[in-house]
Amino acid sequence: MTVDDRRAWETVLAHIENDLLWGRLKPGDRLPGERALAADLGVGRSSVREAIRVLEVLGLVRTNVGSGPTSGAIIVALPGGGMSALMRLQVAAQGFPVADIVKTRLVLEAAVAAELAEAVLTAALHPDTANPDLGRCVQWLTAMDAPGLSEDEFLALDAAFHLSLAEACGNQVVIATMAGLRNAIEGYARAGVARLASWPDTSARLRAEHRGILAAIEAADPAGAHSLVHAHISGYYAETRLTAPAH
Amino acid sequence: MTVDDRRAWETVLAHIENDLLWGRLKPGDRLPGERALAADLGVGRSSVREAIRVLEVLGLVRTNVGSGPTSGAIIVALPGGGMSALMRLQVAAQGFPVADIVKTRLVLEAAVAAELAEAVLTAALHPDTANPDLGRCVQWLTAMDAPGLSEDEFLALDAAFHLSLAEACGNQVVIATMAGLRNAIEGYARAGVARLASWPDTSARLRAEHRGILAAIEAADPAGAHSLVHAHISGYYAETRLTAPAH
Repeated sequence: MTVDDRRAWETVLAHIENDLLWGRLKPGDRLPGERALAADLGVGRSSVREAIRVLEVLGLVRTNVGSGPTSGAIIVALPGGGMSALMRLQVAAQGFPVADIVKTRLVLEAAVAAELAEAVLTAALHPDTANPDLGRCVQWLTAMDAPGLSEDEFLALDAAFHLSLAEACGNQVVIATMAGLRNAIEGYARAGVARLASWPDTSARLRAEHRGILAAIEAADPAGAHSLVHAHISGYYAETRLTAPAH
Repeated sequence: MTVDDRRAWETVLAHIENDLLWGRLKPGDRLPGERALAADLGVGRSSVREAIRVLEVLGLVRTNVGSGPTSGAIIVALPGGGMSALMRLQVAAQGFPVADIVKTRLVLEAAVAAELAEAVLTAALHPDTANPDLGRCVQWLTAMDAPGLSEDEFLALDAAFHLSLAEACGNQVVIATMAGLRNAIEGYARAGVARLASWPDTSARLRAEHRGILAAIEAADPAGAHSLVHAHISGYYAETRLTAPAH
């Protein structure tokens, strides 16, 4: 595709991408206004608006409604947003089978737990390296022990615990991908609860498994943490028979 | 955010997502025309166009330029497209550090190789299960042995080989993510070649390592395949000192 064949909105997108790549635009910067960009690039204002919508969904800019000094699009680079939208829509359009989403979660989350356990091991061997900060993970587990949680409340805390492990690891790509994967199958996970023989039994088991995963990480046992995460996620999906859409 | 606060393009996007989820729209279907969608949802045509651009970048629809019976947006669910755009832009905007991209590649690609080796093992133990089809992978390796390849040609074949392993595994999410990750750092990988002491030495080593990975898979050795992929990818990035942008 030559530049001439490009549609106007793609020209705008390529122009902004180039400015980002070369550092002429960076997080916190405000994009030039619609009118200015349109005039500079010789395209219509609606094409500028189309490109900005795309950047918004991909999590690259935040726009404020209205006019005045606080209006317009600001570069933010929120890695999470775009991935969630993309995964959710791909699952909806049958581009991503649910089974593939679950398998990918398995791979990434088991690797996260193993890496955290390795970091604990490294910190024990080398006093100058810091232990990973697992404080948030512990907080979520404590919150899940509260009596009388609804199923939805429990599942939300469950998701937060899993994500907090990735956050403790600090890999932005893994955090965004995990959040997106989880988001994409949230409806399916919730529907799966109805297929459980006993929610009290399952939730008690999930809580115990979470504690076991955290204990393996704190005990600097990468292989143990890896296999416990694997068993935890595949066990839940097997139990809820999460293979078909919720409707 | 209530529905009333939603901006018009988001209403259109949510409407189409809902139709996909409930199967009222599926791959191969044509979206209603701009005019009809705008009238149905009580929004302007430019808002419909903005939502369709978003779906296009996310790899959900393909649009044809022009008018007549072949114009309009068709649902395609091309899992690869959106992921590449998202990763590339997030790297450009510094939302995804290059080191995190490389680490994620390591996790996913090592898991792919181990899974293929496990599939070979399963096929050996259970004659009714099929061996994974590694034909394409072998073809790419053969192509990389051709004398006189340019560095760019070699790197393109290299990328194709890595992707062919994921394709042999068949997980659509992993295929799309791997393609996106690779795409996001393509410029960096190419710039890294200039920092190599000897391209002939490095390319010979990479070819030998590829053969080793394939041999471990064919020998049904998951742990071996896993660690060879790990050494292969981290070795290349260490050698090219791939930590800073190309410019």
